[in-house]
Amino acid sequence: MSRDDLRPGRLVPAPEHLLTREQLAAAPAARRGFLQKAFAAAAAGLAAGTAGAQGAANEGDPDILQLPQHSLALGQPVALEGYGHPSKYEANLQRRQSPGLTQTRQASVSFAPLQGLFGIVTPSGLHFERHHQGWWDIDPSKHRLMVNGSDERMLKRPMVFTMDELMRLPAVSRFHFIECGANTGMEWGNVAVPTVQYTHGMLSCSEFTGVRLIDVLEMCGFDKKRAKFVLAEGADGSSMTRTIPMELIASGDVLLAYGQNGEMLRPENGYPLRLVVPGVQGVSWVKYLRRIEVGDMPYATKDEDVHYIDLMPGGQHRQYTSIQEVKSVITTPSGGQVLLDQGFYSISGLAWSGRGRIRRVDVSVDGGQNWREAQLQTPVMDRCLTRFSLPWVWDGKPALVRSRATDETGHVQPSNAQLRAVRGKRSIYHNNSIQTWLVQESGEVKNVQTS
Amino acid sequence: MSRDDLRPGRLVPAPEHLLTREQLAAAPAARRGFLQKAFAAAAAGLAAGTAGAQGAANEGDPDILQLPQHSLALGQPVALEGYGHPSKYEANLQRRQSPGLTQTRQASVSFAPLQGLFGIVTPSGLHFERHHQGWWDIDPSKHRLMVNGSDERMLKRPMVFTMDELMRLPAVSRFHFIECGANTGMEWGNVAVPTVQYTHGMLSCSEFTGVRLIDVLEMCGFDKKRAKFVLAEGADGSSMTRTIPMELIASGDVLLAYGQNGEMLRPENGYPLRLVVPGVQGVSWVKYLRRIEVGDMPYATKDEDVHYIDLMPGGQHRQYTSIQEVKSVITTPSGGQVLLDQGFYSISGLAWSGRGRIRRVDVSVDGGQNWREAQLQTPVMDRCLTRFSLPWVWDGKPALVRSRATDETGHVQPSNAQLRAVRGKRSIYHNNSIQTWLVQESGEVKNVQTS
Repeated sequence: MSRDDLRPGRLVPAPEHLLTREQLAAAPAARRGFLQKAFAAAAAGLAAGTAGAQGAANEGDPDILQLPQHSLALGQPVALEGYGHPSKYEANLQRRQSPGLTQTRQASVSFAPLQGLFGIVTPSGLHFERHHQGWWDIDPSKHRLMVNGSDERMLKRPMVFTMDELMRLPAVSRFHFIECGANTGMEWGNVAVPTVQYTHGMLSCSEFTGVRLIDVLEMCGFDKKRAKFVLAEGADGSSMTRTIPMELIASGDVLLAYGQNGEMLRPENGYPLRLVVPGVQGVSWVKYLRRIEVGDMPYATKDEDVHYIDLMPGGQHRQYTSIQEVKSVITTPSGGQVLLDQGFYSISGLAWSGRGRIRRVDVSVDGGQNWREAQLQTPVMDRCLTRFSLPWVWDGKPALVRSRATDETGHVQPSNAQLRAVRGKRSIYHNNSIQTWLVQESGEVKNVQTS
Repeated sequence: MSRDDLRPGRLVPAPEHLLTREQLAAAPAARRGFLQKAFAAAAAGLAAGTAGAQGAANEGDPDILQLPQHSLALGQPVALEGYGHPSKYEANLQRRQSPGLTQTRQASVSFAPLQGLFGIVTPSGLHFERHHQGWWDIDPSKHRLMVNGSDERMLKRPMVFTMDELMRLPAVSRFHFIECGANTGMEWGNVAVPTVQYTHGMLSCSEFTGVRLIDVLEMCGFDKKRAKFVLAEGADGSSMTRTIPMELIASGDVLLAYGQNGEMLRPENGYPLRLVVPGVQGVSWVKYLRRIEVGDMPYATKDEDVHYIDLMPGGQHRQYTSIQEVKSVITTPSGGQVLLDQGFYSISGLAWSGRGRIRRVDVSVDGGQNWREAQLQTPVMDRCLTRFSLPWVWDGKPALVRSRATDETGHVQPSNAQLRAVRGKRSIYHNNSIQTWLVQESGEVKNVQTS
């Protein structure tokens, strides 16, 4: 092509967007046949699944190819409400409560539909929920954050902040995953939960925006030598309190967050303020955050002394095991899905680690005998979901599909057998073992417990 | 802290999350006074703006500090509907139509509320809209994509795809901005549109997921030597057709996208399939995409021959100027906002370029006499929004606040005077000049036309 091709008045082919027989007749003879065949095929495809509105307008006119209504008429001017919603055809993609878990105001959980999500961002409307005494829509103009020390030397200038004051401070935005410590908890027993929504759906990923907690502590003059821990306290009725080690805060990674995916946090995720503690289990990301206390020892609160402990073999338990270790799961194909025929599929899934970036993900379709390295979607970010994929041609025979993630610190996701050899079977929390899906000859995919 | 501190049974301070007088009495004497004062202050702060529900439950009891209702009672179990919504307190943050622009089914536009957004992701519910004949919610099971050549040698195997077939192909996910070519169009005249929502709000940024168009063209056996352009055609009543140069497609950057921010595209943004053409004006990101034709010359369709051309001085016009050049805008402070007092503010804004990554952004508070380099939020991605920020102490005097972006190719955002010296004042499209906001002594911020 030369610059001359772009000059005004140059002869160009007529646009064919109207797709009438007239236009087809005007097209060069060589391509007419193909276009007619192709549109007849497309129209047949449309007609096959159609009754009523689609194509109704021109059904009786043999001179106009059958086109759907949306190609022939005016649509809606702008989305009717100021805040948009997904298509009505996507109504089935929802977060859901598990029939086997508590659904009361005292304790409730909803799972994100990982089987239907793409990329790494979780839409805020589908972000998983875990409430210890229900959620609230708190008036941000009345919300306060208090920052104090466990004694007067620990922090020189205790302060109470309004949201406006916090939001005037320098902010950062970072993409991080959040995972409930109890995610995949049912798999500790021999309960093979049917779908990835219920096995791994207490997992979401957002761009969080907020103020670095270390900046606020420095404003308040905390004692850098004596301060070893922080207590974070929520304002809701659950009296949620969690201990956060100062090492994490000092690195600048812990945020007083008000933003999620570009807008304010959603009420069910802690609006107007929550703690973001990258890599650490969700319970420490205290919602409705109202107080930060700086101290010199762990606080051993009910939610770290009684709950969120790891039962070990021999009656022992582990405590303060907050880091979410390296983990991955295949979301396509996954339990409850059906492969309609043999042939090409793109195996796809998510990998993450509370210790840093994902270095590699391996995928096996024969239950772990052979592995192939998957492709990682960029950017691969620190303590963030990473999407992986691998092309696969299914031969129609049973296949055991699984993934194994390795993070940049060298940690490798363990098998069920490896994890249980150390931790037994009595835990609820921190199950990061390899998930296996069985693709059956029928094409139906189910969750299977394998070693 | 030693490992001993973590052993079961170690003495730890009582949690203070209940905040009753009893607990305060049990706290070490040294801190009691502070805690009482702090909570009294916080309670006063709450009470100041409160009537009714907040604190009502314990208003009459002098032995219990005044706490809001949400700290005392059970909340909602999980978000009532499967798909969540923003807080009721955020109802004012909406996309909006401009009183000065068309609002009919024939042509409509809504602007994203950039003044209230954080980070770089635009929530899909607030993504700007531009409809050429209205939007539809198209049944994806009936939608088809046809791929053909302008003649039989141009493409060997013309194909018609269902959505299921497209979604079985290998997919990629990428963060990109999309900007309408007419964004900031009103500023060509001497119309100083009042807010950043209306000056720059035809701009959004999402993680898009889809199939690389080049992969599909290769499946169809296109002629790599002869193919120079592609025609993309939408299925809605606007008969939108746009020419895409093969160079962009061959680089693997152009996507047949079905995913946006983790879920399917929204209906008003092209559900179930749209073209993603990174760096190129939004009109080329054809919505409701139904056909791709491979050809050897530009198609000169109505939306590139009559509309979306740049009027130049002397009666000339430019055509096929699709790339969105380097640009930036400060969103805080911006027109319509009010600074309530002097002191610290974090100036924050967005920068982007259709030619690649942002290299730097400079900020001036004196109308361009002095500049300081802003901090760029990471990751800085290719043809994606980049958030920048700069600390600023406002002295209460009038300030002319502006930003100037430079991209990795060396392009620098021009001033109004520089842009007009080349392009005159008669354009509608591709205004990437520097935006200036005047912070008045009253704290009110307004849009001003400066050179």
